[in-house]
Amino acid sequence: MKIAIIGYGYWGPNLVRNFNKTPGCEVACIFDLNEKQLNRANKAFPDIKLVNNYDEILQDKSITAVAIATPVFTHFKLAKQAMMHDKHVLLEKPMTASVVEATELIEIAKNRGLVLMVDHTYLYTSAVEKIKEIIDSGEIGKIKYIDSTRINLGLFQTDVDVLWDLAPHDISICSFLMKEKPIAVQAVGVSHIDNDLENIAYLTLHYPGNRIAHFNCSWVSPVKIRQMLIGGDKKMIVFNDLETTEKLKIYDKGYNVIPESDRDKLLVDYRIGDIQIPKIPQSEALAGMAKDFVNSIETGNMPRSNYQSGLEVVTILEAATYSMKNKGTEVELTYANA
Amino acid sequence: MKIAIIGYGYWGPNLVRNFNKTPGCEVACIFDLNEKQLNRANKAFPDIKLVNNYDEILQDKSITAVAIATPVFTHFKLAKQAMMHDKHVLLEKPMTASVVEATELIEIAKNRGLVLMVDHTYLYTSAVEKIKEIIDSGEIGKIKYIDSTRINLGLFQTDVDVLWDLAPHDISICSFLMKEKPIAVQAVGVSHIDNDLENIAYLTLHYPGNRIAHFNCSWVSPVKIRQMLIGGDKKMIVFNDLETTEKLKIYDKGYNVIPESDRDKLLVDYRIGDIQIPKIPQSEALAGMAKDFVNSIETGNMPRSNYQSGLEVVTILEAATYSMKNKGTEVELTYANA
Amino acid sequence: MKIAIIGYGYWGPNLVRNFNKTPGCEVACIFDLNEKQLNRANKAFPDIKLVNNYDEILQDKSITAVAIATPVFTHFKLAKQAMMHDKHVLLEKPMTASVVEATELIEIAKNRGLVLMVDHTYLYTSAVEKIKEIIDSGEIGKIKYIDSTRINLGLFQTDVDVLWDLAPHDISICSFLMKEKPIAVQAVGVSHIDNDLENIAYLTLHYPGNRIAHFNCSWVSPVKIRQMLIGGDKKMIVFNDLETTEKLKIYDKGYNVIPESDRDKLLVDYRIGDIQIPKIPQSEALAGMAKDFVNSIETGNMPRSNYQSGLEVVTILEAATYSMKNKGTEVELTYANA
Amino acid sequence: MKIAIIGYGYWGPNLVRNFNKTPGCEVACIFDLNEKQLNRANKAFPDIKLVNNYDEILQDKSITAVAIATPVFTHFKLAKQAMMHDKHVLLEKPMTASVVEATELIEIAKNRGLVLMVDHTYLYTSAVEKIKEIIDSGEIGKIKYIDSTRINLGLFQTDVDVLWDLAPHDISICSFLMKEKPIAVQAVGVSHIDNDLENIAYLTLHYPGNRIAHFNCSWVSPVKIRQMLIGGDKKMIVFNDLETTEKLKIYDKGYNVIPESDRDKLLVDYRIGDIQIPKIPQSEALAGMAKDFVNSIETGNMPRSNYQSGLEVVTILEAATYSMKNKGTEVELTYANA
Repeated sequence: MKIAIIGYGYWGPNLVRNFNKTPGCEVACIFDLNEKQLNRANKAFPDIKLVNNYDEILQDKSITAVAIATPVFTHFKLAKQAMMHDKHVLLEKPMTASVVEATELIEIAKNRGLVLMVDHTYLYTSAVEKIKEIIDSGEIGKIKYIDSTRINLGLFQTDVDVLWDLAPHDISICSFLMKEKPIAVQAVGVSHIDNDLENIAYLTLHYPGNRIAHFNCSWVSPVKIRQMLIGGDKKMIVFNDLETTEKLKIYDKGYNVIPESDRDKLLVDYRIGDIQIPKIPQSEALAGMAKDFVNSIETGNMPRSNYQSGLEVVTILEAATYSMKNKGTEVELTYANA
Repeated sequence: MKIAIIGYGYWGPNLVRNFNKTPGCEVACIFDLNEKQLNRANKAFPDIKLVNNYDEILQDKSITAVAIATPVFTHFKLAKQAMMHDKHVLLEKPMTASVVEATELIEIAKNRGLVLMVDHTYLYTSAVEKIKEIIDSGEIGKIKYIDSTRINLGLFQTDVDVLWDLAPHDISICSFLMKEKPIAVQAVGVSHIDNDLENIAYLTLHYPGNRIAHFNCSWVSPVKIRQMLIGGDKKMIVFNDLETTEKLKIYDKGYNVIPESDRDKLLVDYRIGDIQIPKIPQSEALAGMAKDFVNSIETGNMPRSNYQSGLEVVTILEAATYSMKNKGTEVELTYANA
Repeated sequence: MKIAIIGYGYWGPNLVRNFNKTPGCEVACIFDLNEKQLNRANKAFPDIKLVNNYDEILQDKSITAVAIATPVFTHFKLAKQAMMHDKHVLLEKPMTASVVEATELIEIAKNRGLVLMVDHTYLYTSAVEKIKEIIDSGEIGKIKYIDSTRINLGLFQTDVDVLWDLAPHDISICSFLMKEKPIAVQAVGVSHIDNDLENIAYLTLHYPGNRIAHFNCSWVSPVKIRQMLIGGDKKMIVFNDLETTEKLKIYDKGYNVIPESDRDKLLVDYRIGDIQIPKIPQSEALAGMAKDFVNSIETGNMPRSNYQSGLEVVTILEAATYSMKNKGTEVELTYANA
Repeated sequence: MKIAIIGYGYWGPNLVRNFNKTPGCEVACIFDLNEKQLNRANKAFPDIKLVNNYDEILQDKSITAVAIATPVFTHFKLAKQAMMHDKHVLLEKPMTASVVEATELIEIAKNRGLVLMVDHTYLYTSAVEKIKEIIDSGEIGKIKYIDSTRINLGLFQTDVDVLWDLAPHDISICSFLMKEKPIAVQAVGVSHIDNDLENIAYLTLHYPGNRIAHFNCSWVSPVKIRQMLIGGDKKMIVFNDLETTEKLKIYDKGYNVIPESDRDKLLVDYRIGDIQIPKIPQSEALAGMAKDFVNSIETGNMPRSNYQSGLEVVTILEAATYSMKNKGTEVELTYANA
């Protein structure tokens, strides 16, 4: 199976490297409009063909799939064209710049029987896989809240704000871990430069039953933090992605509401037990993602990081932007059929 | 100068101990309605008189001041009675349960020439004093944002939610550090037990000029975090209150907007320099607070943690509660004259 | 049971407080030759009698026991006199300034049926008790090495070097945890001031079967470290005494020698599994020590931190001093009968 | 300038990559006796010639230099042959298996005017360069001690013990930082497998004037630590190589001996001030090493990591082995002329 890599910026080289080592897959060519990027590609992968005319790829029948790693606003057009030429499509996150675009792409993929996948790489990390396994085992009970902090002195993007840049990680992880979708969203943020793209933003997701997820995203923090707390009613997990050997800690810690308590006394009983740090196998998440894409094309099975997940992320981001531009008003979420 | 300690719960013993060692001050008696608490007080301070009748204290002309450490909903009545009997008043945080109560107390204090002070203990910590000194020196430039995380598996209060319990620390610190007051507030939170008091809540303060403060408050975190980021446009400070010797780190880190940049390129230039960890003297904050109260009574000077700070905290909390109960709607802040 | 506290320096107040709250025990008086110390004692414990004449205590038949917290070189004389007057004796660590002194005290205690105990407080910490429990359960297998770092910018003692000051903690813990006694000792150290008392020193204990313990002791480290590694052949423990909630980590980590390996290949197979952080109950170690002393007097049972442990510590320290003053030569250990 | 890489094991690929990007230098061929390794090399560097006959390289007059990354016991023979064929030589650390070998190689290099360099990579790290700069500025005063911990669950080497594997890093750093050479050495260690190669070892270096360096080296620690304390009489440095952004901390911390103190009082006065974390530029140390080698060949200047440093390391290791096999006896150091 031959794949074309579309866009050779920050993420492109990783895609080339990982698809090239995926069994049954070969990177046929790299596309970019920028000569400098193509030169970089040439140095790193002298054997791979370089292309600066997208049509050439569309017309090439030997190419089965494209992996698109270009700015978000170009995703829709590039993906649509590719699918119209019967190519399977992998899109970098976020999937598209709007829900309308995402739903149209999904429609096309369904009609033409093509794989349309979004690269939410985190879903293929050993840590997130382990968290999923722990949650599904029932060990931590029902999730009551998720609280994530994803901050550092990061590159100010020039086309998207900090939420569209960083929150797709958190949203796609929540989408993967939770059995339900959020019903409402709120966001506040500020921009400190005059392009009106927020560089600090806080996003809150409301789930049925008083459950909540909150994401703290910033490009202007002096310290780098990648920490997610997952509070179950039995146990709680702390996922610190900057740790090398202790990424996950499972706390046997929590409280129990005492049902028959009389109201003058404290209503809850606290519990503090052992902490467990499970071993997480070391593996490159992107390799798992590439394999899942290739496998989906071969078998027709839905990939883990599928278009539904992609659509959920875009739906939430679109609502978050609306909320952020409207004083943080709560926006109810409705999901397009997909 | 004789002082009476009103309420001998969690904080009472600390007040007794600190006022007793404040020069020019003596704890004359301890008041509590609960026999158990009085017994505890008797064991710890066998020489101090115990009282379970508030009127006895009000009538005692030898008592100059009262320090009130009872549940919030009792603050107004106890403080008002004390001032009507010409006693100076120290109130634990938060000052009162409402703005109306706070303004009435302030009115009385002004009319009668009494000291009315709120115990925002953090303002007397060496760390916050150092931060104030750094900010006032201009070293970090203009503050663009404050981001605080104050979470752990904490005691569920039965009379106030997590914001009224924890956020007074953050609000009073912001009030002390910032030259301006916030103009609007938003809050979201959830309650996981059926008394409707939120145990996780996020509070956002909006300041003029796109500046923001955000507080993450929780009683249900598996890990304890007490961290505040203060982002100046020159440098940034991280205040980690759980560190013993490295509470403050000053990062020479940030970005500069490049004015003449053409819009196709990145708009900002990044800067990463040294980190400074200033030495913070070890001292008990509460001793400084007690001394400030006694000094204010003696000199008539406004204490650092004064009723204006107390009123600002209550004003923001009241608005935050409104916001939290109304889907996080943004509430504009107006401050009573004080 | 009445007890006298001998010496009211750094540790004295803790002894008073803990013996006073031990059931069946009462601090009858505090002895010190220094007027200043007696004044301090008077302020803290106004109800306790102060004594500056040791004979007064010796002659007081109502006093059952003495707890001696004076400089090491005075331990022997004070303890001997007390036992000759039929008083049970608790000595601060290290027990005595020499093996000769220690064995004579032990002889007297045996002949007179008195309790002679040494305050190795660490043996009563929840962390060390937990480690002992884990080792005895067989979970970590046979201990292959112990490696301890106990360094900070500490007070230079004027009568003992850094090993006599800090290593008693490590030696007594090893003595408690290991089934065997060390057979040889080595030490190197340097003094940076002209009193010839080493302020940095490294102590190595050799156990039968190529097992080793090594202690890094320093008063001149910029950072404070209190970390002990315990390497078992099944699992390993890290004991970080500066952690509040994660003092112990049990690593399912190690290697297995592959018996039939051919010699051109690697001889060992590595294993990395989960990490467990057991919950450690919070308790004051000194209270446990005081209780054990009182209980030993009442029941005649050997206390945990007994004179054998005290003698082992002094035996090792005496040999370590010899080694340190003789170019780190290995000194074989022989233990006096006790 | 053409260079041949001798040995394509763990370190070989890094040498190829770095020499290939060094201006004025080109990797002409890769030598290994093991077919598997050559296949690995072929995959990674398809354009580079592979050789399994060392003589072919010796005879190739176009090859200016060889970089030897083979097991230690082969260093002498391979380097000698290369120099006899007038090739400059870079040797991986440790330089040789004995002082005799090292001095003979140095003799040859001198006689033939060839560069003989040892790859002590640490000397080219930004952190060590910064430490050197700080020490040379006089900021931390005279170094009183160095204390290094270099432990983790590491690969058991089959040809050298843990000291020969890990201590070259520490020794070469000390050699670079200190103005003097150590005058004596001591080492203790144990082997837990039956090949008699120590897997835990402690090495002590004695410098004139009661100054000391101590290295804790282990392949069997459950935790990875790479920490070096450098105690100056003015300030102290902590170098934590596992930190990403805070590798160096400079502590304004120490003590002053009070000269006129009367002997009943404490002899020292303590000082605790700010901590400074200097910015360390990010750079690949090996690139700097490669550049230094090429530059030395071109200019005839002595490289930083020169044969004197290599000889000092081997001299100390040889004495350490003797000490370790002789009960840790102190071994006086004499250095061959070089």
